[in-house]
Amino acid sequence: MVNAGAMSASGNLMDFLDEPFPDVGTYEDFHTIDWLREKSRDTDRHRKITSKSKESIWEFIKSLLDAWSGWVVMLLIGLLAGTLAGVIDLAVDWMTDLKEGVCLSAFWYSHEQCCWTSNETTFEDRDKCPQWQKWSELLVNQSEGASAYILNYLMYILWALLFAFLAVSLVRVFAPYACGSGIPEIKTILSGFIIRGYLGKWTLLIKTVTLVLVVSSGLSLGKEGPLVHVACCCGNFFSSLFSKYSKNEGKRREVLSAAAAAGVSVAFGAPIGGVLFSLEEVSYYFPLKTLWRSFFAALVAAFTLRSINPFGNSRLVLFYVEYHTPWYMAELFPFILLGVFGGLWGTLFIRCNIAWCRRRKTTKLGKYPVLEVIVVTAITTIIAYPNPYTRQSTSELISELFNDCGALESSQLCDYINDPNMTRPVDDIPDRPAGLGVYTAMWQLALALVFKIVITIFTFGMKIPSGLFIPSMAVGAMAGRMVGIGVEQLAYHHHDWIIFRNWCRPGADCVTPGLYAMVGAAACLGGVTRMTVSLVVIMFELTGGLEYIVPLMAAAVTSKWVADAFGKEGIYEAHIHLNGYPFLDVKDEFTHRTLATDVMRPRRGEPPLSVLTQDSMTVEDVETLIKETDYNGFPVVVSRDSERLIGFAQRRELILAIKNARQRQEGIVSNSIMYFTEEPPELPANSPHPLKLRRILNLSPFTVTDHTPMETVVDIFRKLGLRQCLVTRSGRLLGIITKKDVLRHMAQMANQDPESIMFN
Amino acid sequence: MVNAGAMSASGNLMDFLDEPFPDVGTYEDFHTIDWLREKSRDTDRHRKITSKSKESIWEFIKSLLDAWSGWVVMLLIGLLAGTLAGVIDLAVDWMTDLKEGVCLSAFWYSHEQCCWTSNETTFEDRDKCPQWQKWSELLVNQSEGASAYILNYLMYILWALLFAFLAVSLVRVFAPYACGSGIPEIKTILSGFIIRGYLGKWTLLIKTVTLVLVVSSGLSLGKEGPLVHVACCCGNFFSSLFSKYSKNEGKRREVLSAAAAAGVSVAFGAPIGGVLFSLEEVSYYFPLKTLWRSFFAALVAAFTLRSINPFGNSRLVLFYVEYHTPWYMAELFPFILLGVFGGLWGTLFIRCNIAWCRRRKTTKLGKYPVLEVIVVTAITTIIAYPNPYTRQSTSELISELFNDCGALESSQLCDYINDPNMTRPVDDIPDRPAGLGVYTAMWQLALALVFKIVITIFTFGMKIPSGLFIPSMAVGAMAGRMVGIGVEQLAYHHHDWIIFRNWCRPGADCVTPGLYAMVGAAACLGGVTRMTVSLVVIMFELTGGLEYIVPLMAAAVTSKWVADAFGKEGIYEAHIHLNGYPFLDVKDEFTHRTLATDVMRPRRGEPPLSVLTQDSMTVEDVETLIKETDYNGFPVVVSRDSERLIGFAQRRELILAIKNARQRQEGIVSNSIMYFTEEPPELPANSPHPLKLRRILNLSPFTVTDHTPMETVVDIFRKLGLRQCLVTRSGRLLGIITKKDVLRHMAQMANQDPESIMFN
Repeated sequence: MVNAGAMSASGNLMDFLDEPFPDVGTYEDFHTIDWLREKSRDTDRHRKITSKSKESIWEFIKSLLDAWSGWVVMLLIGLLAGTLAGVIDLAVDWMTDLKEGVCLSAFWYSHEQCCWTSNETTFEDRDKCPQWQKWSELLVNQSEGASAYILNYLMYILWALLFAFLAVSLVRVFAPYACGSGIPEIKTILSGFIIRGYLGKWTLLIKTVTLVLVVSSGLSLGKEGPLVHVACCCGNFFSSLFSKYSKNEGKRREVLSAAAAAGVSVAFGAPIGGVLFSLEEVSYYFPLKTLWRSFFAALVAAFTLRSINPFGNSRLVLFYVEYHTPWYMAELFPFILLGVFGGLWGTLFIRCNIAWCRRRKTTKLGKYPVLEVIVVTAITTIIAYPNPYTRQSTSELISELFNDCGALESSQLCDYINDPNMTRPVDDIPDRPAGLGVYTAMWQLALALVFKIVITIFTFGMKIPSGLFIPSMAVGAMAGRMVGIGVEQLAYHHHDWIIFRNWCRPGADCVTPGLYAMVGAAACLGGVTRMTVSLVVIMFELTGGLEYIVPLMAAAVTSKWVADAFGKEGIYEAHIHLNGYPFLDVKDEFTHRTLATDVMRPRRGEPPLSVLTQDSMTVEDVETLIKETDYNGFPVVVSRDSERLIGFAQRRELILAIKNARQRQEGIVSNSIMYFTEEPPELPANSPHPLKLRRILNLSPFTVTDHTPMETVVDIFRKLGLRQCLVTRSGRLLGIITKKDVLRHMAQMANQDPESIMFN
Repeated sequence: MVNAGAMSASGNLMDFLDEPFPDVGTYEDFHTIDWLREKSRDTDRHRKITSKSKESIWEFIKSLLDAWSGWVVMLLIGLLAGTLAGVIDLAVDWMTDLKEGVCLSAFWYSHEQCCWTSNETTFEDRDKCPQWQKWSELLVNQSEGASAYILNYLMYILWALLFAFLAVSLVRVFAPYACGSGIPEIKTILSGFIIRGYLGKWTLLIKTVTLVLVVSSGLSLGKEGPLVHVACCCGNFFSSLFSKYSKNEGKRREVLSAAAAAGVSVAFGAPIGGVLFSLEEVSYYFPLKTLWRSFFAALVAAFTLRSINPFGNSRLVLFYVEYHTPWYMAELFPFILLGVFGGLWGTLFIRCNIAWCRRRKTTKLGKYPVLEVIVVTAITTIIAYPNPYTRQSTSELISELFNDCGALESSQLCDYINDPNMTRPVDDIPDRPAGLGVYTAMWQLALALVFKIVITIFTFGMKIPSGLFIPSMAVGAMAGRMVGIGVEQLAYHHHDWIIFRNWCRPGADCVTPGLYAMVGAAACLGGVTRMTVSLVVIMFELTGGLEYIVPLMAAAVTSKWVADAFGKEGIYEAHIHLNGYPFLDVKDEFTHRTLATDVMRPRRGEPPLSVLTQDSMTVEDVETLIKETDYNGFPVVVSRDSERLIGFAQRRELILAIKNARQRQEGIVSNSIMYFTEEPPELPANSPHPLKLRRILNLSPFTVTDHTPMETVVDIFRKLGLRQCLVTRSGRLLGIITKKDVLRHMAQMANQDPESIMFN
């Protein structure tokens, strides 16, 4: 199908051939799509279906099906993404426990399931049941003592190494695109870039399997980012089933945006947060229609996950919290401090991680991905095992840190000294002095915090699926909980201080350390990703804490401000730049004072622009031109003297049209004149049959004048999703600006290496 | 300040005059702004400040202040909008009660406050306290009996008429723009239209006062839409304090978008819903930066309102609900039915309301707005008083309908027959058979539903402030509660039916009628406004019911589908069309097959386009041209023969430049040649001094070719916010397309009257 502009212009040629040659309208790998063109093509398709639908009932039904196919795709994506997320959750649960022991009654049961089915279990020793055996019990029949500990330690490391090795090998052999979080690439793809296979079926399969492996191995990574990638693979798969989406790169991206929302929705059980994440962080072109569909997909996915019920509590919410006290104005100060911490950690993390990834790209390090994963896994598990806060899975850790200390809580973090005379209701416990357990926990948390901060820098970016959300949140939650306990103890011991006097009387329950953990988690996540609105929404969907919007928001905004002061790029944009993808960020503002004429090619001193003339070049001339250059297309002008622009011809379509004409049309030889006008030019009597190519000419190429400020050009590229734009002065063609030129110019203006933009 | 393109081109003229003439860069009333131009101007401003900031510390501080002024404006808007909303709530509370009686101890106390401060009050007779006297008690010392009833009835009507009369008179005399909900106009303004005074200080003041009056009068309207208008007036006021916003119509609109979010935030206590409402429903240009700022403004506003605490319960949430049972899959069927009802009601309401408003516009009816308001108020109060569900304020009604029947509930709706042997905990009451009260309530609700449906059609659109959210929600909540009670009783009496058997055992609490009311409210609101995501978010922020996303979403999507099947326009778009505003809706898809050449002017047979030549017209020629035409600008071409385009000159700036030159520049006479080139043209020796006007020439006018499909043109106008676009073929100027032309063409293609687009 040829360009819409050309089609409407040459309406009489419509019936010539519906799909003139195969592959017309598709793009090369690692190239940028033209959004306007995709949109035109879709409107044409739509028009054709609408006009056909009046012909017969069957066509009418087909047009209805076509109109509803968007919703059907969303339904399918939601169902598959929800199912996959549920399966991953269950598998991770089992394999994480496998590192510690095995269930004798049925080896496919996780620790909890094993003890749950066991009849002898009472409430108190839920975690101790005869069916569940630690490796030391099973292998040497010892459950206590140094040798049992060491054996368990070793088994833990061995399993982790096995999982990690399997994961990295699978990724290397079957689907190299399955590594990383995938969000930088998805952002780039959604902005209109082609990376073939990145969302393919193999990637889907391998990423799902390896995600289970790496999360179970206990590495410092999360499953949230990769789940977005998995959901986008689902989206890509289902959109390939409907020609409406499979044949149009623009429409396909609308589906992918919605799939990303479904991914976050199942990752956190946060459908609205997912939609906002897709809107704020991932998507490029997000019309309102996509907003509604995304919401639908996110909802179906969350609902499917809830039906699978992997956490066994039929809640959508991952870390459900219930706090019994409101927050007080004075607490805003520590919350903002946590925001500052989050911003600093975000900056630190991005800088170090990018430096390390660059090192990996440029030095020998990158040649041994398997070894790297093994080493990092070994270090992680060796250090993690002795500390209870790093040994448990990160989501359990976050859950524990978010928790408010109720009366029945057995956690070390809740080891407060109770007033023996107290006869209060269970859920209204006043602030109490911290016991020994809390002090121990503080030390362990501090060590765990340092460890997490360091190891995450080295983990994110290895050749395995790895998400950042959970480690960032863990860092923030640990810092937050420690601050929270600090404030709590300060308030308990110094009721009379002026900052506490107004709101914290003795015997009252003023400070909830769990809330500080929640705020800290939001701050750190915000510092790394620079999300704000979607972050707060995710946090309160995650915890059900609608009352705590103000603290969360205060921390998120502070964190963003602090982090932005050190550098505007979030981690995903930083990785996009590192990889040199042609991504035109909506958030970057271009404020320099250059004009289109400074950016366009040819520059001064360069050979003139390669153009076609409308009716004087032969087939051979054009073939030579195509052979000698590698441009994606050529402007067509009236003549070389006047240089008045009449249109633009795509390289790909030129090649196909010539090939086609040579095969099928009589009398087309190398000497044939090619013409783009309506009527053939007047030729000498004995000249060969001319070749009409108006069909492939885009009669409405996008032009700007040479005096157009670059900020306007950038805006136009961004909003209209152009691939290239022609530059004219008083109607004469002067040059061309491609997306790559724009990106290079922006890099240059920001004092970066323009060669860092690698693709077209 | 002149156009950025021209400025950068003629950089050497920069120092000529900073602000050459006053009023340059502003727009006429009822005209469309040029977004690209506003953006360029802002970038110029920004560049100037940045380069100056390196000169001295004072300038650096000024640049910092400038950078932070956006956040400061948001803070101020949040504070003022929150305060106003609190004051309105308090005043409405008092005045609504004033219709029934007065507090003897202090007349400025509302019923609740009066009885609250009275010491004798116990829990049982909270509503009966000696301090509070009904009018009959106060005037004739009777509290019971027919004559007391009639007296109270009359006083109720009299107060309502007084309030309504005051409101409509104030609006008519002081601020005619204060009427209606304001959302259609704000949508139009945000899309880039100028309506002077619509967001002015008088409108702010009068709308606030009259809003209190009309809500208190008991008319079938809500305060939510008008609060958005009030918040936007605040936004406009504060943006006029900062030159960054007051001098740039584009930047000002970013502030207004955020203010709209703050308005919804305080209207419902739903900050996130407010941001999404602004994004989904109101705003046109919504960059991510605005998203963050909107969130901040919405948060500050909600927080301010919470600090004022008008509801006395320190909750942000307007209708807090707590349900004790989950929902079941089988219930999706009635929920979807409610969605269908919502969609039908939305369609019916929009059709009837628009028909009535059109009648008001075109017949004599529109000449008597005061009489109309008085008549509608009289009818409303006369019918409303006898029915308890219409007598109470609509928000109380909704609150009661949403409520779950607890053990202590005294409402008629909760008059179930209790099992005397039951000794269950308070919050887990099984389904019970309905008592007499419930049946009475059903009848009254049915009557109230019919009344609300009819009267709202006539109320919305009168010359008083009137919102639609609350009446729509009330209609849905009434229908929903009735369906809910029906399902509950069906399930109670027919436990054995196959549809109930799986999830509703005898003695269980299966059905929560309050949830049905909530779902019904969402469905009706969705049918009228066609919101989806923001609607669901508002609903759950409103009620705190995070668990009920799926039912809410199912109803909202169904309602939208059903309503869209009958007509794509929501109530706000319908009113925009009715008023003929030039609004280019993002939701409308243009799928026709016309080209730019079909839309551009001059059309065939019309006189040629009025153009300026670059160096051959005299001042007098141009003055004549300006006098004879009323175009907003003129293309400048090389010469009339070649018609090669070099730029575009705004009418306003031409007039100012000529006026300015005649006053200040020596030797400029009517015969002076005007030139737009860099160098003056070669003139005969004795010719007068020529006038250089390159400064006001936009060297980068937007052009498309005549073959560009109109769908692309519409897309460009929409996304870039153009005001006009020039049409060329092979570099020759052919014609011009303005926003009005585009809108007229779209109306024509949709078989509407193109003359319905009234403004430029």
